[in-house]
Amino acid sequence: MGAIRFSLFYEHQLPRPWDDGQEARLYRDALDQIEIADRIGFDIVWEVEHHFLEEYSHSSAPEVFLAAASQRTKRIRLGHGIVQLPPEVNHPARVAERIATLDLVSGGRVEFGTGESSSSAELGGFGIRRSAKRGEWEDAVDAVTRMFVEEPFAGWDSPHLRMPPRNVIPKTVQKPHPPLWVACSRRETIEFAARNGIGALSFSFVEPADAGRWVQEYYRIIESEECVPAGFSVNPNVCVVLPMMLHEDEATAIERGIDGAHFFGFALAHYYGTTPHDPGRTSVWDEFQARRAQQGFDRDRIIANAEALNVNVGSLRGAVGTPDQVSELIRKYEEVGVDQISFVLQAGPNRHEHICEALELFGKAVLPRFTEGREEREAAKAARLAPAIEAALARREPARTLPAGYRIDEDAEVARARRARRPRVTPGAVRAEVRGAGRRRALQGFHRLVKGRSDRQIERAFGERAQRVFFAGMARAYDPSAAGGFEGDLAFRLGRSDGTETAWTIRVRDGRARAREGAADDARLTIAASTADFVRVLAGDGNPASLLMDGKLRLRGDVEVAPRVSEMFGGPSPY
Amino acid sequence: MGAIRFSLFYEHQLPRPWDDGQEARLYRDALDQIEIADRIGFDIVWEVEHHFLEEYSHSSAPEVFLAAASQRTKRIRLGHGIVQLPPEVNHPARVAERIATLDLVSGGRVEFGTGESSSSAELGGFGIRRSAKRGEWEDAVDAVTRMFVEEPFAGWDSPHLRMPPRNVIPKTVQKPHPPLWVACSRRETIEFAARNGIGALSFSFVEPADAGRWVQEYYRIIESEECVPAGFSVNPNVCVVLPMMLHEDEATAIERGIDGAHFFGFALAHYYGTTPHDPGRTSVWDEFQARRAQQGFDRDRIIANAEALNVNVGSLRGAVGTPDQVSELIRKYEEVGVDQISFVLQAGPNRHEHICEALELFGKAVLPRFTEGREEREAAKAARLAPAIEAALARREPARTLPAGYRIDEDAEVARARRARRPRVTPGAVRAEVRGAGRRRALQGFHRLVKGRSDRQIERAFGERAQRVFFAGMARAYDPSAAGGFEGDLAFRLGRSDGTETAWTIRVRDGRARAREGAADDARLTIAASTADFVRVLAGDGNPASLLMDGKLRLRGDVEVAPRVSEMFGGPSPY
Repeated sequence: MGAIRFSLFYEHQLPRPWDDGQEARLYRDALDQIEIADRIGFDIVWEVEHHFLEEYSHSSAPEVFLAAASQRTKRIRLGHGIVQLPPEVNHPARVAERIATLDLVSGGRVEFGTGESSSSAELGGFGIRRSAKRGEWEDAVDAVTRMFVEEPFAGWDSPHLRMPPRNVIPKTVQKPHPPLWVACSRRETIEFAARNGIGALSFSFVEPADAGRWVQEYYRIIESEECVPAGFSVNPNVCVVLPMMLHEDEATAIERGIDGAHFFGFALAHYYGTTPHDPGRTSVWDEFQARRAQQGFDRDRIIANAEALNVNVGSLRGAVGTPDQVSELIRKYEEVGVDQISFVLQAGPNRHEHICEALELFGKAVLPRFTEGREEREAAKAARLAPAIEAALARREPARTLPAGYRIDEDAEVARARRARRPRVTPGAVRAEVRGAGRRRALQGFHRLVKGRSDRQIERAFGERAQRVFFAGMARAYDPSAAGGFEGDLAFRLGRSDGTETAWTIRVRDGRARAREGAADDARLTIAASTADFVRVLAGDGNPASLLMDGKLRLRGDVEVAPRVSEMFGGPSPY
Repeated sequence: MGAIRFSLFYEHQLPRPWDDGQEARLYRDALDQIEIADRIGFDIVWEVEHHFLEEYSHSSAPEVFLAAASQRTKRIRLGHGIVQLPPEVNHPARVAERIATLDLVSGGRVEFGTGESSSSAELGGFGIRRSAKRGEWEDAVDAVTRMFVEEPFAGWDSPHLRMPPRNVIPKTVQKPHPPLWVACSRRETIEFAARNGIGALSFSFVEPADAGRWVQEYYRIIESEECVPAGFSVNPNVCVVLPMMLHEDEATAIERGIDGAHFFGFALAHYYGTTPHDPGRTSVWDEFQARRAQQGFDRDRIIANAEALNVNVGSLRGAVGTPDQVSELIRKYEEVGVDQISFVLQAGPNRHEHICEALELFGKAVLPRFTEGREEREAAKAARLAPAIEAALARREPARTLPAGYRIDEDAEVARARRARRPRVTPGAVRAEVRGAGRRRALQGFHRLVKGRSDRQIERAFGERAQRVFFAGMARAYDPSAAGGFEGDLAFRLGRSDGTETAWTIRVRDGRARAREGAADDARLTIAASTADFVRVLAGDGNPASLLMDGKLRLRGDVEVAPRVSEMFGGPSPY
């Protein structure tokens, strides 16, 4: 039996149309909400850092907002969920300075969430290569945590950052530095978090049962020799994010919260998939209104099935319900060992008054059910992990001591910083880049293919030739690192309006994948759908969860493989 | 008769030795002080952005601190004094996002001060070329102000920044954007501020009479066709920065405030001159204790001459005194048309309790003397300038409208951002860079030359051969843009311990300078000193103001030329 903590999660969503003063109100309301959360016993408020994601997230400077929140609250911790670490966005020294300053003005209440950018709007906006961003993250976490503990920071020379020795000031209140987290969108990144000894902030709206398997794997790695901490402390914690709305009357809770929860999911898919976006012009809210049902965000469906709380594929409802329902859901996460649930209340058109009411009700009717004995259980967990953590920290390269006598020398330092760098581009990286680009371009093509077309028109456009190109490309895009050891055949059966169908098989073996036409005798997983629905899913225009529920998408065999298929073949992650 | 406003100015100074919790206390105290300033009627609190300047400034993330201050105050405006605009430090989109977010959480109270980096610690730390930073400033101000007003920002392609079209969100509360300022350290940058139609934040501790001339020139340009606004609004204001401490008893004011004022000046010279700095190791406070008197920051001298308030060369006292004395000083600035005085109270070892007391006394005994009729006078000024401002804004290139139909395209955008750029380096820029580097290296040499040496030893080291190299180098470093039209001969007379002396002349004519040995018949300015004192000044080890007062440095001729000599020959500016 674990112990669970509660946090709030802010994207600062603002569906169009906008009017003057609305952004100011959004921020003001959020500060009021956080004051309530602080008072009733929430542990953390998380705020994202996103750039240019109109409507989905107007939270581009969390360092400013969280600093404002620090003076409106007393106990609640202030979490960056997350800071974008590619140096094209934030220079590592500036990250260290901001985290330390926030830690100072808040009296040591910072949680330092880290991540890479991943939407096209952000990567394209700042000129970040997808193939480089993981390396940039690793490099920046190492550099920033050294800036916290080294006095002076002994300098850096990597493909991503060159910096001479400097004492980066101020220093954090929390020693050696605030707890570290990393944004996780799939199983692989949760394992990655564990290997780095840092908290996993999971954004994938994972179901309790799946969460349980992730948590087990996470703690197995934390306690193993695989764990080599990225920072100078270990933060063993798994947090899952869920949309929430609370009311004693279930229908009212749904009425107040479901549009927000659905808009959140829809807008996320909009920016993280391949839907075209015209900056300053596209109305995500209009698109949501027009296509929510088609993408699985069907308001009526949720109300009709009100008894099934958040246990559907895709978590289409989240924690929207009564105190009893939400408590039951929390209990399930607690039982499988999740350490923290982060609730999104401010989403889509959700109203400030309803959010405040839900928070107050949560403090009265839900939170007290989970506090008893919590500290003791946490102390027990800390005691159990202590030896493993000590051993892990011994594996991390220690802080460096710069020999005395270094002299700041502007001219030499600037020359060194700007010296041409031999590009460290491997043929493999180039191939990966080209593959990824080709795939994204193909998906954009799919979008044009389905737009306003009938099933028959789509079938004609996605004929045998196009299918051959597609499945061959899919096999080429195969990424063993995302396959989690999967081997075997994946079969696809694409039906047509005239009742015929075409079968394709992708065989994964020895780290490679090959496509061929025809059915597999012994497929690990078979995916069947109409050609038109299949293409719509590829184009980001149909939601697999919704199609599954409607029986339009059928799975046979090892169903647990299904959620991995997109990532295995280089597709977008759920976040 | 002008109208004057008052602001506070924060560097977050922290002389060594440091103990745990001291930085947190420094920040907490500053927030308490700002609460008082807000209550008693200060108009703005300014905070610098400095990196790695240990002891001198622990204010590396003003965006965080000012956001905290926003929730502790109601009326006071929040000024970045300044944001460092070279993209190596802050990506322009991140600057726009932070300014807008601070404007949102503060209800439209932001003043947007801008500047270039200028200390070696910062330029070397971020790899910024001195020859490029003015261009970077101009480019970034243009881009950032467009991000505020363009919806979407229509993209950028300059030698300093490439960015595709994006809607940069959130937007500011103040329209079109918060008032713009630029950091000014010398006459040329104040003229530059005027040509750009933005406020001049002057850090040079300028005397009232000099300030008057600067203000006249500033407003002449603002009202002329030379003014082409850098932003989408004009902010006609001149602010001067002064150290301050207030007490009814003059001796107590000095006792409480002079060490802070002097440490401020000393540490500034340490980081902006060429004194060697070993990051994390050099104690600026120890050096201050050892060498303050020698550099002109002589505590005893100030007490002895207590009647002369801040009207000494070099402003060695600032606004440290009684309410009557400080009011008299303010009146002088007001009379010459200065719009704002920014007081530095938190400096060096100054104590929190004394700062709070001084602020309360200022609110009671000084501020009320300057508020009567202030708004009317400001309204009259605004009305007088309105036609000129309207005309100036018409000269600025307008906001752009991106044609509809742009599509975010990550791969094409990233490729464009990273495409190799033909370096736009002119032979002139290379020469300027080489000259500047040579000069900085020579000055570092001087520092080694004087360290622990007697007068005679210095004379021997700086013999005729060394002098020839030095004056020839000085002539080569001549920068016409900093000369303000000066033409004529500058004569130098360097005495020796044996009573002999050597004379040198630098002739400035037609935009060039030449050095020769020997006296000038008709020098515009003659500078005479012992060889040892002259070299000590060059090495940053002797303060000209102090040597002047002691008669060890003698000027003859056009004395007003003297403060410009350093800048004319590529030397460090006073800030």
